[in-house]
Amino acid sequence: MEVNYKNIKVIGFDADDTLWVNETYFRQTEHEFAKLLAGYETENKIDQELFKVEIQNLDLYGYGIKGFTLSMIESALDLSNGKISTQIISQILDLGKKLIAKPVELLDGIEEVLQQLSENYRLILLTKGDLLDQERKLEKSGLSQYFHHIEVLSDKKEHNYQNLLEHLEINTKEFLMIGNSLKSDVLPIVNIGAHAIHVPFHTTWQHELVHEDDNNGGYKTVENIKEVLKYL
Amino acid sequence: MEVNYKNIKVIGFDADDTLWVNETYFRQTEHEFAKLLAGYETENKIDQELFKVEIQNLDLYGYGIKGFTLSMIESALDLSNGKISTQIISQILDLGKKLIAKPVELLDGIEEVLQQLSENYRLILLTKGDLLDQERKLEKSGLSQYFHHIEVLSDKKEHNYQNLLEHLEINTKEFLMIGNSLKSDVLPIVNIGAHAIHVPFHTTWQHELVHEDDNNGGYKTVENIKEVLKYL
Repeated sequence: MEVNYKNIKVIGFDADDTLWVNETYFRQTEHEFAKLLAGYETENKIDQELFKVEIQNLDLYGYGIKGFTLSMIESALDLSNGKISTQIISQILDLGKKLIAKPVELLDGIEEVLQQLSENYRLILLTKGDLLDQERKLEKSGLSQYFHHIEVLSDKKEHNYQNLLEHLEINTKEFLMIGNSLKSDVLPIVNIGAHAIHVPFHTTWQHELVHEDDNNGGYKTVENIKEVLKYL
Repeated sequence: MEVNYKNIKVIGFDADDTLWVNETYFRQTEHEFAKLLAGYETENKIDQELFKVEIQNLDLYGYGIKGFTLSMIESALDLSNGKISTQIISQILDLGKKLIAKPVELLDGIEEVLQQLSENYRLILLTKGDLLDQERKLEKSGLSQYFHHIEVLSDKKEHNYQNLLEHLEINTKEFLMIGNSLKSDVLPIVNIGAHAIHVPFHTTWQHELVHEDDNNGGYKTVENIKEVLKYL
């Protein structure tokens, strides 16, 4: 199907793993967490337990590093039947703090793309997660100059997008979303009648995984962010 | 000094301890935390240590219950020299979860005030803290119908307010902020040339305390939120 982008006026960009590296740092942290608990379980079992606890806590904690850190502590207590040392609890707190303080590593080509698109479109940044973390990352990234508006959402479901477009007075047909998560950046956007381009990142959190056979032509997939310039 | 509110078009309301009870629940939680650590230190010393750790972590964690819970765990490890049991760590996690799940208790008269003011002014909700928590509280409160706009800020300093008013295209002289915190809701507002009404709550977190002698007539103080109706 030939998708036509000639009506697009506003482009939304996801942040984590679209503008900069994020999931890779979480995976490194999970690996370090598993090493701390190596005396109790296999890494595979530890990963599974942590994921289970994160999903159980998602309604309460939402997305972001602080909730992730609390879930690591809870998992450590569970996996060790309460036998974990307080020294390891302290090391888990440090893992969380290190994750918050990670440098921002821009993905290849992103600044060039933002710079070019910002000449002809209104760009907005749409991310979920922790407000302070995301503000801090944007500031470190040096990319804030390209965005007319920044919005941190508590989630990226259809109603979150609908409310936002209404609030910003953006016509659905004139809106294009670009991001790495089919579940959060692409499918809800297609479902509300707006446009989406999927730019997969090599690592995706299990919770964000969906079956790709949902693509009935409602969105494009590109391998590298620079390819979007061919269409816009 | 007679302050004149006849130019006011937009009124910003703080949320925690202005619309609903918040600090009281934190104090209850701190008291329960101190009871868990009673074998190690006096309640006074425990309070001091927790406050110290919270302030140390504020740049990293920001405001909100998840950061507060992480700081309780860190304080428990410090105060016990790592001797605290994992059972108590688990109870601290539960204290945090209970705090997130607290019911929303509206302050006396608030709904009447919002209902009346919403007829003649554009009302916006300006709060800091955790995005998901604040959205959840607003939903539970039943008050969202009165607000044209909700903004969760990572902090409430002069530049945060200035950016927001600019972004929402609100004239400083036409803006009035109502809230319980002199430090966050009143003084920065007066400093940028907008109007503020201070409605003290009986309990204020130490970090929000400032000397009241800063009032050179730039803002009004009322004892009960309903008094604002006399001026508007």
